[in-house]
Amino acid sequence: MSLARLKAYGWGREGEVMTPEEREFVLGRYREKFGRASFDTIEVARLDEIALPAPRVKPPSSIAAFCTSEPYDRAAHAYGKSYPDYVRAMLGDYASAPDVVAYPRTEVEISAIMDWAGSIGASLMPFGGGSSVCGVEHRRDERDKPAITLDLRHLGRVLEVDATSRAARIEAGAFGPDLEAQLKPHGLTLRHFPQSFAYSTLGGWIATRSGGHFATLYTHIDDLVESLRVITPKGVIETRRLPGSGAGPSPDRLFIGSEGTLGVISQAWMRLQAKPAFRAGASVGFKSFFAAARAVRAIAQAGLYPSNCRILDPAEAYNTGAADGSVAILVLAFESSDHSLDAWMKRALECCADHGGMPETGGADAHLAGAAGLWRNAFIRMPFAREFLTPAAIVNDTFETSITWERFESFHDEVKVATLRAIREATGIEGEVTCRFTHVYPDGPAPYFSFHALGRHGALLEQWRAIKEAASDALIAAGGTITHHHAVGRDHRPWYDLQRPELFAVALRAAKKALDPQGMLNPGVLIEP
Amino acid sequence: MSLARLKAYGWGREGEVMTPEEREFVLGRYREKFGRASFDTIEVARLDEIALPAPRVKPPSSIAAFCTSEPYDRAAHAYGKSYPDYVRAMLGDYASAPDVVAYPRTEVEISAIMDWAGSIGASLMPFGGGSSVCGVEHRRDERDKPAITLDLRHLGRVLEVDATSRAARIEAGAFGPDLEAQLKPHGLTLRHFPQSFAYSTLGGWIATRSGGHFATLYTHIDDLVESLRVITPKGVIETRRLPGSGAGPSPDRLFIGSEGTLGVISQAWMRLQAKPAFRAGASVGFKSFFAAARAVRAIAQAGLYPSNCRILDPAEAYNTGAADGSVAILVLAFESSDHSLDAWMKRALECCADHGGMPETGGADAHLAGAAGLWRNAFIRMPFAREFLTPAAIVNDTFETSITWERFESFHDEVKVATLRAIREATGIEGEVTCRFTHVYPDGPAPYFSFHALGRHGALLEQWRAIKEAASDALIAAGGTITHHHAVGRDHRPWYDLQRPELFAVALRAAKKALDPQGMLNPGVLIEP
Repeated sequence: MSLARLKAYGWGREGEVMTPEEREFVLGRYREKFGRASFDTIEVARLDEIALPAPRVKPPSSIAAFCTSEPYDRAAHAYGKSYPDYVRAMLGDYASAPDVVAYPRTEVEISAIMDWAGSIGASLMPFGGGSSVCGVEHRRDERDKPAITLDLRHLGRVLEVDATSRAARIEAGAFGPDLEAQLKPHGLTLRHFPQSFAYSTLGGWIATRSGGHFATLYTHIDDLVESLRVITPKGVIETRRLPGSGAGPSPDRLFIGSEGTLGVISQAWMRLQAKPAFRAGASVGFKSFFAAARAVRAIAQAGLYPSNCRILDPAEAYNTGAADGSVAILVLAFESSDHSLDAWMKRALECCADHGGMPETGGADAHLAGAAGLWRNAFIRMPFAREFLTPAAIVNDTFETSITWERFESFHDEVKVATLRAIREATGIEGEVTCRFTHVYPDGPAPYFSFHALGRHGALLEQWRAIKEAASDALIAAGGTITHHHAVGRDHRPWYDLQRPELFAVALRAAKKALDPQGMLNPGVLIEP
Repeated sequence: MSLARLKAYGWGREGEVMTPEEREFVLGRYREKFGRASFDTIEVARLDEIALPAPRVKPPSSIAAFCTSEPYDRAAHAYGKSYPDYVRAMLGDYASAPDVVAYPRTEVEISAIMDWAGSIGASLMPFGGGSSVCGVEHRRDERDKPAITLDLRHLGRVLEVDATSRAARIEAGAFGPDLEAQLKPHGLTLRHFPQSFAYSTLGGWIATRSGGHFATLYTHIDDLVESLRVITPKGVIETRRLPGSGAGPSPDRLFIGSEGTLGVISQAWMRLQAKPAFRAGASVGFKSFFAAARAVRAIAQAGLYPSNCRILDPAEAYNTGAADGSVAILVLAFESSDHSLDAWMKRALECCADHGGMPETGGADAHLAGAAGLWRNAFIRMPFAREFLTPAAIVNDTFETSITWERFESFHDEVKVATLRAIREATGIEGEVTCRFTHVYPDGPAPYFSFHALGRHGALLEQWRAIKEAASDALIAAGGTITHHHAVGRDHRPWYDLQRPELFAVALRAAKKALDPQGMLNPGVLIEP
């Protein structure tokens, strides 16, 4: 595949943008929301204009062939895709760009980079697709170490397929579409489709406990990992391919979610599935979000395991064009490679009916028409909006969590109220906070909040931070997790510290010290050295 | 509940034994197997005859109220229920009995014991029901530390029930039946039923990654843990109640399977279920074990998630009285609190038919009659046999593992052949090795082997060890795990060391050192200090 290069500023690859119609739809919603005919819009700094700090180090000839300090490479690896990342990149602030970007082609080359980083006291950041929304920049201010980014894109192959066990050994740098394309001839699929699917990698998914396609059961990548290979500064770790094991604490689980702090995941055996041959889907309207939530709880506790079981509150459904704002929508779907799903769907719809849910009936209900399809399309396309919303001083962001069912309603209200108040205080203008469920469990949902505020150029970073802090404070105070599937990164670290038991940090720090004695890997991520 | 005390020698509580009919059935099978009319049988050392080494330490008055060095307590905590444990106890060898058994009633008392252990350089072993089959004795020979056992039986309460989220906060010392009895008034159940259910505790299940009732999906206790409280020598760790999280490596997963080496699990929020109201069950006969395995693979990969999906090879089915030895049996069942399971069972039986599986048809097939019920009863009762088989010099033991499907058939044959050969070489008499599946996954089964040998008094320990070593060597060489759900303990340690990545041991050792700097907790379990 020959693909355009990833954008330094913006979502996806160069040349990929929203259509004029999509753009107009999104901006229209914001004009309506904030009662403005237009927005104060500035220009985004162009890549050929930005000033990068001079690289502080130069790779030795033994590794120079796969290292570069070209401006595009450094700029494109300076940030992820968090809101502050957009603001800083828009303003041409690339102070945190790495000095060198390495593109190793083998595990030996990964180790060679580690050796070099160790010899010069550099920090090393493993890099997949760069789609993180949690803040992943090198922190120059904290410790003035040379900064090297390790981009794994050249380790993108499916190395081995075991069709009998439905598993494949895959290199960590494989992007979603390429990974699926390589599996397709075998009739198999990983079916892990995070929103960032096209622009993120297997290694990134594992390192961040990515949440995928499945709303129930195999929600996180965690359960799809059969075994791992990890390159640490002390050597290679390879775990056994085992369908299940009870031999000590799971080695895989120490590295799943380690966010690049313990080692570089180089490959994994992943559990796959046959392509679905049977599907059943419905959109179900509810009078309120909480009524929909009660139906979803019933479905989650029934052991039916729908692949899709997402509810959108009325405002969220309206914003994505899935409904007219008067109803909450449940997007419900089952899929199977093996059997018809009539019995499953029938029972799930009964659970909905018990809570007043009315399925979409082929166009009769205008406010529901095509809701599932419209929402799915919006879900995939929405990240493209931020690159023009940020220059228009619109502060839009999301945060996601999980909470047990018995606390959900008060939790929802507390978080929403706190976030709305923070928007008002930070911007002086009424904002909007919407909620949907991305994943659901028998013991609780994973609520996903979006917020929309009209900011002011020159103050965007501090306005965003005030809102983010208020939302995160409320979320932690009310018992949630600071992240269900977006990871911790640098933005969530203060609240992660509050929720994570201190003695677990002590244990993790000791484990890191044993595997990465110099602390080169992502210093300051998850734990202090 | 007032219960008889746990046996020092034997399975379960004092007074609980096999009926004469059960005993005769079991011995009859062995007489037939080894072609003997009777066995050379010796007397088991009586508790009032055994000589315990004098206790080396005496608890200070501040903790004396819940500590004892009475002979019964020390003897009953000297061993678990592994084969070598039976042999040593039968012979009256209680050299590894702890000096003191503590029965703390609160977390504060657990910490007080840790403080005392630290002050006198003692080793501390957390103890649930004592049902381990992997070797859990204090090792006097390795390090001449005073040995304290921490028995958690007084922490057995269900403290809090959240019926909305279907979860409960339960103390770690709760035994299976008592735990379920406390949940019952709430209409909820943990439904984790290991073979040891009546004689093991929640804390033990979590510390050893116990495998339970469910043959698919929620196979291990791991996924049923919502949050944990763990007392370490450095303080208390409490994780958040979260239905799902992506915030760093899972803290719970570090302690799940830690076998008492990192801390003492004091309580856990556990995910529960409503009582099943719908059931569908069948016994299906197959010409061969491998044909049954192929059907089970189809079911496991179909996403049907039966609660029971166990296959017995023909000899295993015969030994337990479930069939006449001519067929392999699949014991298949679905259960739900929510919906009828006709569609599920119908499709699963189609998968069976594809591989030649014939369901039991109410007595028409004599060799299958009541197979599921007979097997289930045998499964629960079988552990009671060892206390009279060991005195008869019969060496019977089990080991369990998991392997991916594509390697399963050759794996099975290699392990079976190696074990049969070892029996022949160790005893000079042909033995038997049978296999069943306890749990199945989309990527592979968890095969569970039983072996039967006729040993010789005076040589039982070395004969058992020779067989165990050959079986374990074969199992590790062929790619399995040394344990799927029985844990590592002392007996599996050499093979655990082979399968576990060395750098994971390095990380685990560092974590242990951080939480248990004196190395008081189960020294020598999982890792060397």
